[in-house]
Amino acid sequence: MRYGQFDDEQREYVIDRPDTPLPWINYLGTDAYFGIVSNTGGGYSFYRDARLRRLTRYRYNNAPLDLGGRYVYVRDDASGDYWSPTWQPTPERELDDYECRHGLSYTKIASSRGGIRAETLYFAPLNETLEVWRVRVTNDRTENADLSLFSSVEFCLWDAQDDATNYQRNFNTGQVEVVDGVIYHKTEYRERRDHFAYFATSATEDLVGFETQRESFLGPYRGWDRPIAVESGTAKNSIAHGWQPVGSHHVKVRLEPGETREVIFVLGYAENPRDDKFDPPGSQTLNKTRVRPIIDRWLDGARVQRGFDDLRAYWDDLLGSLTVRTPDGDTNRMVNVWNAYQCMATFNLSRSTSFYESGIGRGMGFRDSNQDLLGFVHMIPERARERILDIAATQKADGGAYHQYQPLTKRGNNDIGDGFNDDPLWLILGVAAYLKETGDHAFLDEQVPFDNVEGSERSLYEHLQRSLRYTLDRLGPHGLPLIGRADWNDCLNLNCFSDTPGEPFQTTENASGGVAESVFIAGLFVLAAKELAVIAGLRGQDGEEVVYRAAAEKMAGTITEHGWDGSWFRRAYDFHGNVIGSGENDEGQIFIEPQGICVLGGVGLDDGLATKALDSVAERLATPHGIVLQQPAYSSYRIELGEISSYPPGYKENAGIFCHTNPWIMIAEAMVGNGERAYDYYRRINPSAREAISEVHRTEPYVYAQMIAGRDAPTHGEAKNSWLTGTAAWNFVAITQWILGVRPDFAGLRIDPVLPGDWPGFEATRTFRGATYEITVRGAGRVTHLLVDGERIDGTLVPPAPPGAVVRVEAIRE
Amino acid sequence: MRYGQFDDEQREYVIDRPDTPLPWINYLGTDAYFGIVSNTGGGYSFYRDARLRRLTRYRYNNAPLDLGGRYVYVRDDASGDYWSPTWQPTPERELDDYECRHGLSYTKIASSRGGIRAETLYFAPLNETLEVWRVRVTNDRTENADLSLFSSVEFCLWDAQDDATNYQRNFNTGQVEVVDGVIYHKTEYRERRDHFAYFATSATEDLVGFETQRESFLGPYRGWDRPIAVESGTAKNSIAHGWQPVGSHHVKVRLEPGETREVIFVLGYAENPRDDKFDPPGSQTLNKTRVRPIIDRWLDGARVQRGFDDLRAYWDDLLGSLTVRTPDGDTNRMVNVWNAYQCMATFNLSRSTSFYESGIGRGMGFRDSNQDLLGFVHMIPERARERILDIAATQKADGGAYHQYQPLTKRGNNDIGDGFNDDPLWLILGVAAYLKETGDHAFLDEQVPFDNVEGSERSLYEHLQRSLRYTLDRLGPHGLPLIGRADWNDCLNLNCFSDTPGEPFQTTENASGGVAESVFIAGLFVLAAKELAVIAGLRGQDGEEVVYRAAAEKMAGTITEHGWDGSWFRRAYDFHGNVIGSGENDEGQIFIEPQGICVLGGVGLDDGLATKALDSVAERLATPHGIVLQQPAYSSYRIELGEISSYPPGYKENAGIFCHTNPWIMIAEAMVGNGERAYDYYRRINPSAREAISEVHRTEPYVYAQMIAGRDAPTHGEAKNSWLTGTAAWNFVAITQWILGVRPDFAGLRIDPVLPGDWPGFEATRTFRGATYEITVRGAGRVTHLLVDGERIDGTLVPPAPPGAVVRVEAIRE
Repeated sequence: MRYGQFDDEQREYVIDRPDTPLPWINYLGTDAYFGIVSNTGGGYSFYRDARLRRLTRYRYNNAPLDLGGRYVYVRDDASGDYWSPTWQPTPERELDDYECRHGLSYTKIASSRGGIRAETLYFAPLNETLEVWRVRVTNDRTENADLSLFSSVEFCLWDAQDDATNYQRNFNTGQVEVVDGVIYHKTEYRERRDHFAYFATSATEDLVGFETQRESFLGPYRGWDRPIAVESGTAKNSIAHGWQPVGSHHVKVRLEPGETREVIFVLGYAENPRDDKFDPPGSQTLNKTRVRPIIDRWLDGARVQRGFDDLRAYWDDLLGSLTVRTPDGDTNRMVNVWNAYQCMATFNLSRSTSFYESGIGRGMGFRDSNQDLLGFVHMIPERARERILDIAATQKADGGAYHQYQPLTKRGNNDIGDGFNDDPLWLILGVAAYLKETGDHAFLDEQVPFDNVEGSERSLYEHLQRSLRYTLDRLGPHGLPLIGRADWNDCLNLNCFSDTPGEPFQTTENASGGVAESVFIAGLFVLAAKELAVIAGLRGQDGEEVVYRAAAEKMAGTITEHGWDGSWFRRAYDFHGNVIGSGENDEGQIFIEPQGICVLGGVGLDDGLATKALDSVAERLATPHGIVLQQPAYSSYRIELGEISSYPPGYKENAGIFCHTNPWIMIAEAMVGNGERAYDYYRRINPSAREAISEVHRTEPYVYAQMIAGRDAPTHGEAKNSWLTGTAAWNFVAITQWILGVRPDFAGLRIDPVLPGDWPGFEATRTFRGATYEITVRGAGRVTHLLVDGERIDGTLVPPAPPGAVVRVEAIRE
Repeated sequence: MRYGQFDDEQREYVIDRPDTPLPWINYLGTDAYFGIVSNTGGGYSFYRDARLRRLTRYRYNNAPLDLGGRYVYVRDDASGDYWSPTWQPTPERELDDYECRHGLSYTKIASSRGGIRAETLYFAPLNETLEVWRVRVTNDRTENADLSLFSSVEFCLWDAQDDATNYQRNFNTGQVEVVDGVIYHKTEYRERRDHFAYFATSATEDLVGFETQRESFLGPYRGWDRPIAVESGTAKNSIAHGWQPVGSHHVKVRLEPGETREVIFVLGYAENPRDDKFDPPGSQTLNKTRVRPIIDRWLDGARVQRGFDDLRAYWDDLLGSLTVRTPDGDTNRMVNVWNAYQCMATFNLSRSTSFYESGIGRGMGFRDSNQDLLGFVHMIPERARERILDIAATQKADGGAYHQYQPLTKRGNNDIGDGFNDDPLWLILGVAAYLKETGDHAFLDEQVPFDNVEGSERSLYEHLQRSLRYTLDRLGPHGLPLIGRADWNDCLNLNCFSDTPGEPFQTTENASGGVAESVFIAGLFVLAAKELAVIAGLRGQDGEEVVYRAAAEKMAGTITEHGWDGSWFRRAYDFHGNVIGSGENDEGQIFIEPQGICVLGGVGLDDGLATKALDSVAERLATPHGIVLQQPAYSSYRIELGEISSYPPGYKENAGIFCHTNPWIMIAEAMVGNGERAYDYYRRINPSAREAISEVHRTEPYVYAQMIAGRDAPTHGEAKNSWLTGTAAWNFVAITQWILGVRPDFAGLRIDPVLPGDWPGFEATRTFRGATYEITVRGAGRVTHLLVDGERIDGTLVPPAPPGAVVRVEAIRE
């Protein structure tokens, strides 16, 4: 069953009813100011760092699940009836109609009750640190309507973690100022904070009151469902002293029949120079001289409309870098809009802030960011470049990596563990993707420090060399890479041996002396070493090219010797040298990861092992809802395996459909030429293709989720943890570069689709190194030659055209 | 205005209306299993550690403020009307009457709606790890009533911090079993947890359904105010797989007119041996053989009644150790019941769990625990003994202290900072209090390790020696003790110089090379050195006695020389050697702490400085709501002072009435013989005496709060952070030992009251070292002699009688 539908024209998902199976969210913001917004107005905002600079308060896992957000109450002053046009937080007050449109970095929620229609557009303008709520209220009645509007936000006292635990302090610190209708939230501004939040309204002439103390606005023992200020129609102009600062404007409007009134609210973040915080100097009064013009700018309706138009143009531009027209509508809309959009969300937010990520615990991941890059580098190569430099600067001198770094400081830390031995190799793949996209080989000569230590700068190329060396320095008895704390699968903790309740598997001390090895890292190494070999060759360092290629070949041989189980690739060897992911095991006999990554590294392509492994995946791991991570699920906890076995069977890494891994298999199938299967797998987890079973899938039909419950789970097919997942990038790579086969390569743009048999072909438009390629794929089978602006080129590689050129490419399959 | 009244007979506070200014809470549990319960049923439970073993989920700072708890819904199955008899979470469904009785470790909430009366008694039986909810429903109608009862708890996934942040994992882990009407919450039991929770009902024959998945119980997008199961009268027997496990029983009862039905619910915590977790072995089914008999025991109504009687007897016994009959009812009820009760709460919970302490961040404080001990040592000397040993074992070899330790591990840690240079001295005061109470001098020879390191054991006496030495090893240029990170006032951070927003003042790196000294520690040192001198003397170590006494005198001299400002004691010298708490300063000229602690140490008693200092307090710091911490308040942030100046004026340490410090002044006034003032100060913050202004005071009228907003605050008189505060112990000491003057001393029980002039005397019963003293104080002025069982003793000291003796003491004032 569906809860809405795609509006492909507008690039919006249109939700028809507010009670979606789970809150379906969207993101505001494109640069430094961000927010999440659900289809019922729930969510919160922050500046750069969701933990340390949170503007508004949000209670995760609330009941109702999603409560607290950007609510504007409408009150009919004649009858006293009031409601929220976003449904929450007043779901008992039924709406006559409701529609939520999640667009690209904006959300529009419109509804009617009793002849009063309200439509709110939420968006954060480009290059500002604020968000706009444009409310349009229309009187569809035949007589005048006297209405009150009450805006509302609950301010967070900046550090979201502290805000939710340290009441002894925080109930004493809240401070606000209210000047000219603007509510300034300035908690701790008196001391070390040079930043503040503000909440303003365009309706200053109709502003009849405000509230800044939550208890005054809601009333004692009342929730957001029935604020006393709204119920009584009276704001008491409260000034918060401690407790819970909120912001609410009370605006009164009289609407004639048919009349529409636009009221704009602006919520924003601002900083002042430390030596000019107060006005007058020496006072404790917030200096508003810098922020006031910004506020005024965005309270202007025409400016808001232009800002919104600019935002849409921004997305037109970003998404214009690749569009496809295939026989499959689900593919088209995911590639052209939603998957790319989700990739940008992972660029902006890494894993920090979603409906499932509380914004408290996780910064930018080293491995995550490198993979996410695969999905956005074609849209924003310059920012991808910066991102790589940020990441590489956190690399340690021995080639190892912090597992994450914080966006405010850009310094690496071990808060979520360290010693994940796959981490450094991902940097090579990230850089390779950037080079293939841009051809910017000078990038490799950028001087980048290690661990952000000044004076330790070396070329980015040397960073990559050390990444590879890091693996070679850490080989186990079979010649496979030691796994360290874990590899890509954070939950396969082979050195942990945790028997302490609640102890985090990723940060607790590991046992030493073991020989746990990872076939996954081995496969990843082969892939990365081959990439670096090419890079070395392109730099003219032929000796190194040979070395890296030899290292890749050697590792591939080791995989074949010690990592092959007869019908599939093994997963690992444990602390004691026992095999994992083998027919010898009673549970966890076959894992998805090595089948994917080894084939991606080219292992088994020549000797049939790849096909065999992929057949085993099809036979043992594939379900109608996607490919599960391993089988059989671990039915009990295994101290030698760690977190993976801590989950109930069918969830997360314990045989859930961990979607991130599925595109590896799609790519592998494409590599062995099986377009039918590659595409079939693609569709199984394509959220748009799953829209029709939204009551089973439950998360948003427009973005990927990290996990879909596996066949061992009672809730098989239910997705969780949507939005912030490496799934987005890898699926984008799988469909665009391998199935549709429009694949950037060092030497140019490759067109090498591996399609399902009944597709006659497809068309695509791709910008690449400044030129635009209008691509048509036709025929059946694999591409044998191209017609580039009518000129035949054998093979699949389109050489780069000069920037600005428009190139017609016909790819002929035979 | 009042929201209830004291029932002195029952030792209950009776709340007449549910909408108290803030949630007014109580505690369940006396040993290892604890809970907080508000007057509307809100709160949560845990086993030992509020962070790591939380049984039920609670959202702090919710809106409404206190939502989530132990709710039992009543549904009239004929009309479909339903409500919660505890008012929350259905406040819109008005109750015809309501009464909450907070008693000693139990709470009773009773109400009626539409002729159906429900009374719920909540308590945790002694020596069990569970709580009982005894619900009695009465049909006051003239016809039969067909009712449904729905119990409800929301389980926390054990680690409260992780539970509130890590949704990617936690939404996948929830597991339950339901067998014979018992709901077992066993999330993570499959892996490293050997413990589980259970929720059972006595009404198994009338049990018609259950729920264990929150969404099934509440319904999509519904809150606790209108669970779909209750609204529809149908539980769907959901089994939680991930998401949010809850427990709810659906019980149907038919009541004839006048009939009462008792239904018992039991919520508990249990552990199994690691090698016998499952039944049958090898399965994943919880072994219930050990817990089932416990459950059955407490589902029996007669046993529950006996358990409740036992609990009351337990408190009779504890509180029987000191009772007073004075002319002042507020004094009587606080001393006899509530202040002592609050002291036991601080014993049990330190600062971990209240309506303001989220149970996440704080374990047992070194300084806190030693001070709290002053308030409970007379009730539970054996457990005070254990507590001291636990604390002392965390002391470091150099005499220094971790600032806190965790109750589960009893190991010290620096999570909330270290290097608070006053910490070690408090150990001496704690031990002295224990010795005075018990005469158990052998205690000093107990072998106690340092930093819990096996093999480092030394006598407790040596621990005290090192405590003193720690101060002497750290003296500044004036000969005053270096303050380190901070002294008692955690927020006076003289070495911190923090300019980073949000940085915690207590844990961030301090600047080195400064000379910040504390007059407070100096006063505390004098007090502690004198106590240790006495102790040394009693051990026959006369040489040491002389040394300690000399050290005390020398420090007293230093205080007089460098710590006296002309009319009061100075507070400190900062990093650069500049004075703090002096007429030379523009703000923070006079602080309360040194005026109290120096006089307590005897400084200024002989030369009139004490009186002068106390007059300055009366003149500059005293307000009708208590004595503020300093004046004038800091109007802006001062980087050289730290957190104290981060608070808005009038709050917390920045000139709030930090109640903990007030009894020091009461004691000091008693020491200088000013009973009028001592008692006046006592009444100003006595919560019972403030009951009449509950709308101003706002927190519970039966327990002290940490802070009352000072005169600089817009909310002057508003209390915050009730229950877990050193205020409880110190006020108990001030009123009982110094104003009423019934004071344990090394050599016996001293009777030396300093009363207000219009008191004719008072009576008291005090157990002391096993004997019972029936004390009558009469006459006017100071006590000159005693009649002990009729025999005259000059002075004020009653020599110890043999255990079991009942001694009549008349104290004659002349």
